[in-house]
Amino acid sequence: MDAPLLINERIDDLGRRGYRIIQNRTRFCFGVDAVLLSWFADVRKGERVVDLCSGTGIVPLLMDARYGAGDYTGLEILPDMADMANRSAMLNDVETHVRFIRGDVKDAAELLGKGQFQAVTVNPPYMPAGSGLRNPDREMAIARHEILCTLEDVVRAAKSLLETGGRFYMVHRPGRLPEILSVMEAYRIAPERAVFVHPFADKDAAMVLISGISGGRNRMRTEAPLILYEAPGKYTEQVLKIYREDG
Amino acid sequence: MDAPLLINERIDDLGRRGYRIIQNRTRFCFGVDAVLLSWFADVRKGERVVDLCSGTGIVPLLMDARYGAGDYTGLEILPDMADMANRSAMLNDVETHVRFIRGDVKDAAELLGKGQFQAVTVNPPYMPAGSGLRNPDREMAIARHEILCTLEDVVRAAKSLLETGGRFYMVHRPGRLPEILSVMEAYRIAPERAVFVHPFADKDAAMVLISGISGGRNRMRTEAPLILYEAPGKYTEQVLKIYREDG
Repeated sequence: MDAPLLINERIDDLGRRGYRIIQNRTRFCFGVDAVLLSWFADVRKGERVVDLCSGTGIVPLLMDARYGAGDYTGLEILPDMADMANRSAMLNDVETHVRFIRGDVKDAAELLGKGQFQAVTVNPPYMPAGSGLRNPDREMAIARHEILCTLEDVVRAAKSLLETGGRFYMVHRPGRLPEILSVMEAYRIAPERAVFVHPFADKDAAMVLISGISGGRNRMRTEAPLILYEAPGKYTEQVLKIYREDG
Repeated sequence: MDAPLLINERIDDLGRRGYRIIQNRTRFCFGVDAVLLSWFADVRKGERVVDLCSGTGIVPLLMDARYGAGDYTGLEILPDMADMANRSAMLNDVETHVRFIRGDVKDAAELLGKGQFQAVTVNPPYMPAGSGLRNPDREMAIARHEILCTLEDVVRAAKSLLETGGRFYMVHRPGRLPEILSVMEAYRIAPERAVFVHPFADKDAAMVLISGISGGRNRMRTEAPLILYEAPGKYTEQVLKIYREDG
């Protein structure tokens, strides 16, 4: 039985194990960032995972579809987004191990427990609060600008949630990499892997996927670049493979 | 008239405007790193440029061949390497504007003048003094390990040599990127461009080219990745273009 939909909501197929998601047409809908993050975060079975700034819940749902039975908690500050994400979990019959909690990233450890998680994922707002054009819609602005949640809030929360040796996975803008590495160092999350995502092979990176180990001492690897398109509107084989059921 | 060669020396063609270089068979000879650095450093005509840890002098020679008449000074701590580099400058009849000074990177500003240069390039030793296998040959070890010159020495020297707005260009190992960005920030050289160099399209990066602006506030761009080989021993068109006369 499908969960009831509210006005402006629609159901989208995730193309993986029949999973679906509820999204609101008028609000923030997931993009390739979330898909790449769920692929990049190599969660293992049985792990306890938190997704911060969880929004529609796309990242935990995609990870659950991809990696099988871990235990996923999404933290989302907007009550109706958290509610919609929980309805998506129900829609997929995964509410026993995929749940969404309404709360502020600044209270993450109080709400979810300190040092109890093996992995934290986050697709945070990319833009500093004062930069660029702000969407007049407050909720869209919250998803894109660091209004309720800064880079440092996210890394601090990840550090407090992770057990020693636990993994942090984030997708962000490459322009903020110096700051990202500096904040990770300040909170003792050692950068481990980076993947730069370029729209075309001959263009600047538009995203970076970065992971780190809490309390680790790894030296960062920059893995093979990810190229999104081989021609306008035509995904590369590399990306199609990530989207494919078996990718 | 050719400069005299010492024992074990040979002359190699640089494949650009007939430029040649003297190298010693038994010592550190230039690699693709130097070629990529000279391409990455977009020196403009008439600029005053310093190359630190200059070794055989390959980077200033390649830049002179590529960009035309700037004024290049290489700083090299080993007296016979600096001498060999000066003989290479004479061999190419460019000693009026390509010269090599024997000296320690720690004394760069005293030797060459403070804040008087538009660009600084460096292909420094990649490995921390205590890490990895050290070459039993002291000169080879100096070229590869931070024995006489650390990352911080290099960045500090660049900062002292550059005018405000002057550009810093370095090739290094991607594993040291967090440290590189942190040291650049400490000396107020704002990261501007990064190019990751991968041996193959599906392999981890082996080098990173990074530039920064002294006193700048730019946000770092990660440019299109550079892939060296399309098959074992077969350079990509991208690299062949850099090596070509007109590239």
